[in-house]
Amino acid sequence: MNLSDLVTSTGDQLGSVELLMNIMWTMLGAFLVYFMQAGFAMVETGFTRAKNAGNIIMKNMMDFVIGSLFFFIIGFALMFGSDMGGVIGTSGFFNPTVLQDVTSLPIGTFLFFHTVFCATAATIVSGAMAERTKFVSYLIYSACISIFIYPVTGHWIWGGGWLSQMGFHDFAGSTAVHMVGGVCALVGAWLLGPRTGKYTKEGKTNAVPGHNIPIGALGVFILWFCWFGFNCGSTTAASTSIGDIAMTTNLAAAASTLATLIFTWIKYGKPDVSMTLNGSLAGLVAITAGCDVVSNWEAILIGLIAGVFVVLVIEFVDRVLKVDDPVGAIGVHGACGILGTLLTGVFGTGCSLLTQLIGVGSVLIYVLILAFIIFFVLKKTVGLRVNETEEYEGLDLHEHGMSAYANFRFHEDR
Amino acid sequence: MNLSDLVTSTGDQLGSVELLMNIMWTMLGAFLVYFMQAGFAMVETGFTRAKNAGNIIMKNMMDFVIGSLFFFIIGFALMFGSDMGGVIGTSGFFNPTVLQDVTSLPIGTFLFFHTVFCATAATIVSGAMAERTKFVSYLIYSACISIFIYPVTGHWIWGGGWLSQMGFHDFAGSTAVHMVGGVCALVGAWLLGPRTGKYTKEGKTNAVPGHNIPIGALGVFILWFCWFGFNCGSTTAASTSIGDIAMTTNLAAAASTLATLIFTWIKYGKPDVSMTLNGSLAGLVAITAGCDVVSNWEAILIGLIAGVFVVLVIEFVDRVLKVDDPVGAIGVHGACGILGTLLTGVFGTGCSLLTQLIGVGSVLIYVLILAFIIFFVLKKTVGLRVNETEEYEGLDLHEHGMSAYANFRFHEDR
Amino acid sequence: MNLSDLVTSTGDQLGSVELLMNIMWTMLGAFLVYFMQAGFAMVETGFTRAKNAGNIIMKNMMDFVIGSLFFFIIGFALMFGSDMGGVIGTSGFFNPTVLQDVTSLPIGTFLFFHTVFCATAATIVSGAMAERTKFVSYLIYSACISIFIYPVTGHWIWGGGWLSQMGFHDFAGSTAVHMVGGVCALVGAWLLGPRTGKYTKEGKTNAVPGHNIPIGALGVFILWFCWFGFNCGSTTAASTSIGDIAMTTNLAAAASTLATLIFTWIKYGKPDVSMTLNGSLAGLVAITAGCDVVSNWEAILIGLIAGVFVVLVIEFVDRVLKVDDPVGAIGVHGACGILGTLLTGVFGTGCSLLTQLIGVGSVLIYVLILAFIIFFVLKKTVGLRVNETEEYEGLDLHEHGMSAYANFRFHEDR
Repeated sequence: MNLSDLVTSTGDQLGSVELLMNIMWTMLGAFLVYFMQAGFAMVETGFTRAKNAGNIIMKNMMDFVIGSLFFFIIGFALMFGSDMGGVIGTSGFFNPTVLQDVTSLPIGTFLFFHTVFCATAATIVSGAMAERTKFVSYLIYSACISIFIYPVTGHWIWGGGWLSQMGFHDFAGSTAVHMVGGVCALVGAWLLGPRTGKYTKEGKTNAVPGHNIPIGALGVFILWFCWFGFNCGSTTAASTSIGDIAMTTNLAAAASTLATLIFTWIKYGKPDVSMTLNGSLAGLVAITAGCDVVSNWEAILIGLIAGVFVVLVIEFVDRVLKVDDPVGAIGVHGACGILGTLLTGVFGTGCSLLTQLIGVGSVLIYVLILAFIIFFVLKKTVGLRVNETEEYEGLDLHEHGMSAYANFRFHEDR
Repeated sequence: MNLSDLVTSTGDQLGSVELLMNIMWTMLGAFLVYFMQAGFAMVETGFTRAKNAGNIIMKNMMDFVIGSLFFFIIGFALMFGSDMGGVIGTSGFFNPTVLQDVTSLPIGTFLFFHTVFCATAATIVSGAMAERTKFVSYLIYSACISIFIYPVTGHWIWGGGWLSQMGFHDFAGSTAVHMVGGVCALVGAWLLGPRTGKYTKEGKTNAVPGHNIPIGALGVFILWFCWFGFNCGSTTAASTSIGDIAMTTNLAAAASTLATLIFTWIKYGKPDVSMTLNGSLAGLVAITAGCDVVSNWEAILIGLIAGVFVVLVIEFVDRVLKVDDPVGAIGVHGACGILGTLLTGVFGTGCSLLTQLIGVGSVLIYVLILAFIIFFVLKKTVGLRVNETEEYEGLDLHEHGMSAYANFRFHEDR
Repeated sequence: MNLSDLVTSTGDQLGSVELLMNIMWTMLGAFLVYFMQAGFAMVETGFTRAKNAGNIIMKNMMDFVIGSLFFFIIGFALMFGSDMGGVIGTSGFFNPTVLQDVTSLPIGTFLFFHTVFCATAATIVSGAMAERTKFVSYLIYSACISIFIYPVTGHWIWGGGWLSQMGFHDFAGSTAVHMVGGVCALVGAWLLGPRTGKYTKEGKTNAVPGHNIPIGALGVFILWFCWFGFNCGSTTAASTSIGDIAMTTNLAAAASTLATLIFTWIKYGKPDVSMTLNGSLAGLVAITAGCDVVSNWEAILIGLIAGVFVVLVIEFVDRVLKVDDPVGAIGVHGACGILGTLLTGVFGTGCSLLTQLIGVGSVLIYVLILAFIIFFVLKKTVGLRVNETEEYEGLDLHEHGMSAYANFRFHEDR
């Protein structure tokens, strides 16, 4: 229905106008959040090796596909169906559009918006498990996170569950999306084990540089662009505060990028390219929880902290935990998701650090347990990992019978 | 004029608000449809060989350029000018902005929206004719489709012509855009003949893998993103149904991708990367006609059918017809455009399968005839095809005197 | 605040609706202008050599980062603070959100919109100075343009300064953004000197082809897409003229691309790929000043002129001035920025060529002087240029200790 249909009764014209404006804004946000899939695909492809490029793209594509389908069929009902004890939703299975009264938006708009958010959480994991995971196992995991993990904690935080009743503040999903994805990434990468050659018997840690930094960087630019839809769109309404949210989002990301640049410059002697690109994402993840309740200067501070923190966590995961995360997803999404949610408790107007701690802690525990169960069962049944020959020769060849750069010819001048 | 200018007369405030909301929504859709050009350029570049990468990009760029200019000068008048017998428009040549009364939107908005749609139809063809078409002939074809083909069938379907009078339902252009492009692609690729080495004398069909799957995949992600503008923007109005359209679009694409993945896995033993990416596009093309009149589950069903159908058609074209279509455009846009339009007659609320059949059949015949005339005349005059040396050494070198990957240096670790 | 909060008082409902529509439109434009960063990064990476790809991406990322921070802290205050003599703003330092009365939009929206514009000017320069500039010097320059250059001429043109008082018309920034960036690029590239090997002792000029034309072309498509946000968003209001602006923008770009294609075809015997891609940008830059005050046919004419002009200027800079500009930024942004601003005086309704000349001339002189001072001081202190070994072996290795295409493996069939 267009406006002219809606306003034949004269009483509620402005309500109809407001509704249509809110729909447009929410849909723009959702379109941009969809496009994050392209950003993740390019980041993960660029930062890993050429022999696995086709496979990583397929994982990115398929976790969105599977996430979209299972969130429609089951996930949305668990997240937004009739609340049972603050813990889980229980209605709307197979036909989520019946849940019209969970939102003042049309249900289709609301459902689409949350579909793209769910798929974002799923796709974070593929980078951490890149270059050695069995394709079929990854597909099963994708269904599981979209059914058993994201919608449950999503219900707690955004679906009227116990954390939202407590006043836990996670505006656009530092915890609900990024930490959930990042913690699954940690469990998955840990159970999977490192890529062959990553850690030597002598305890040495080898860097495995990515094969195409330009498209990796393109992915980061795409993600930053889409983050404006992610954060500003999370008003799910036309609002005078949209510009303020864009400002805090942008300043945090800028400050974080600068902090990582300077910190790696001091630490390594040279400003590190891929770490700095991860620094941008770290700031974006960290500001996501509180982008609507912190000032511009607080956003800069959050960014500066996140930009240093992400380097320390990525190194800790890589060298101390010896969990092999090819793209740094655990540090970026997991650690900075936690960081940003807690800093929202410190800086955010009307937020409580204790509530934020409870929220982070409970989601962390739930996701750790569920992800462990899922990946452990997969490991003991289907198997998580390709064999050594497949890993050495590349997943593109063995899982898909192709090469990402066949017929590639170039002309070397100098 | 801004709203405050428009509402100095108190009578029509809400009409002005509605108009401005409709403009914003239509423009957002049009911007995204423009960006499909980037998607097509990346898909076609990535799925062909490196030696022709510069040339394919030029074709993508120039068909948009030529389409934009000729649609402005002539095409829009043929599509939306005063109707003559339900067959063609006859006014507004050289100055289409006089046709203000064909739309409730400002004419500039409406004209821009339809310009980007026209250019999408044109650009579909370049992929099917890649790697052996003379550049100058392609430029002439681009002008012809934007003058003689797209606006005529566009008039029938969307310009008040005989098909729209019959109630033919093609919401966002499965037929008007995709099938038109796909059928031109079929005729063009057939008259052009296959790439040298594609079919051996012994009747063997060789695969010619693309040179850069990551950017091809990026193109698919871009197209999926922009398709939300294509389908949801085709309301050309702020509407409560936008979210429903996004849902059917997304679910059909997801189901189609999954169907192709599974079908190729069974058929070839491995899940095929480039076919699966084409599966995404197949679902998007198929849902385009009926995205506003089918349910979510019907969208999933349409997607599942399209995902299998596209594989069968691409193989049929490749192995039985022996028409060499490097990117699968005939199967994706032509066949799935037909499929989606017909399935709209099966599933769509208020749609008639007979009317859909008549629409598809008549457009098919018209485009087949016109495309044949255009490409046949080109073949017999300017020539369609580069010579064998040019084809072997690459169109980049011979048509443009360049290499797409000059100065490319890489560092091979493993 | 959402609409329902705003309209509890019944007097100003439509004012609130208008405000929210204007916010949404301005934010959409700003999001797209942000995404130009991806376009510039891909253009500049693709059109230069692989050994410097990581470095050019870092420059693109960091000038946006530094520009965002310094424009927030200082630049916005200089551009929009209380006017002093028509020359400069003087309030709002460190806390620009206090300047609420400079706009009818919420200050956060207005601030974000102008932040992304400022960063666009900064990023234009990196291409012209590619492949031999010290990273640290480039970072300092980025801060300087965002403090000393862009906000000052921005104040004159858009901040209520003397040029805006005179009626100088630069709708979306042919002068304020593109010429400012292009002139800085000229001064920077000139003081820096050419890349080693670009000009031989015998006076020969060598072409240095880019290493990845597909991603360069992707950058051009991204920029064209985002330009709709740049130009249409510069209404900073929902307006019935948005579609007209998109039409003039698109037609100028299309005409310019076609003109460059034909002109290079005649001049060089073959249609030149990278020059044609620059032709698209030339038309976009040239139409930016007058996109709201010229007709569609005038836009085509402006495009045709720009498409030829940009080739002549790029050749003049390259061969006569012998200023080495790897991506043609001086011709595209500097020269076509001037051209478009002056042609707005020729064709634009209500515009004066004399006023446009005064505007262009004064901004040109100011930017030339300031850019000279900045780059000259940098040259004499920190140094502008890497040493010969670093240049020869690549900035990626020496400035960042990495390779953009490590682990790149491909499979050459033919």
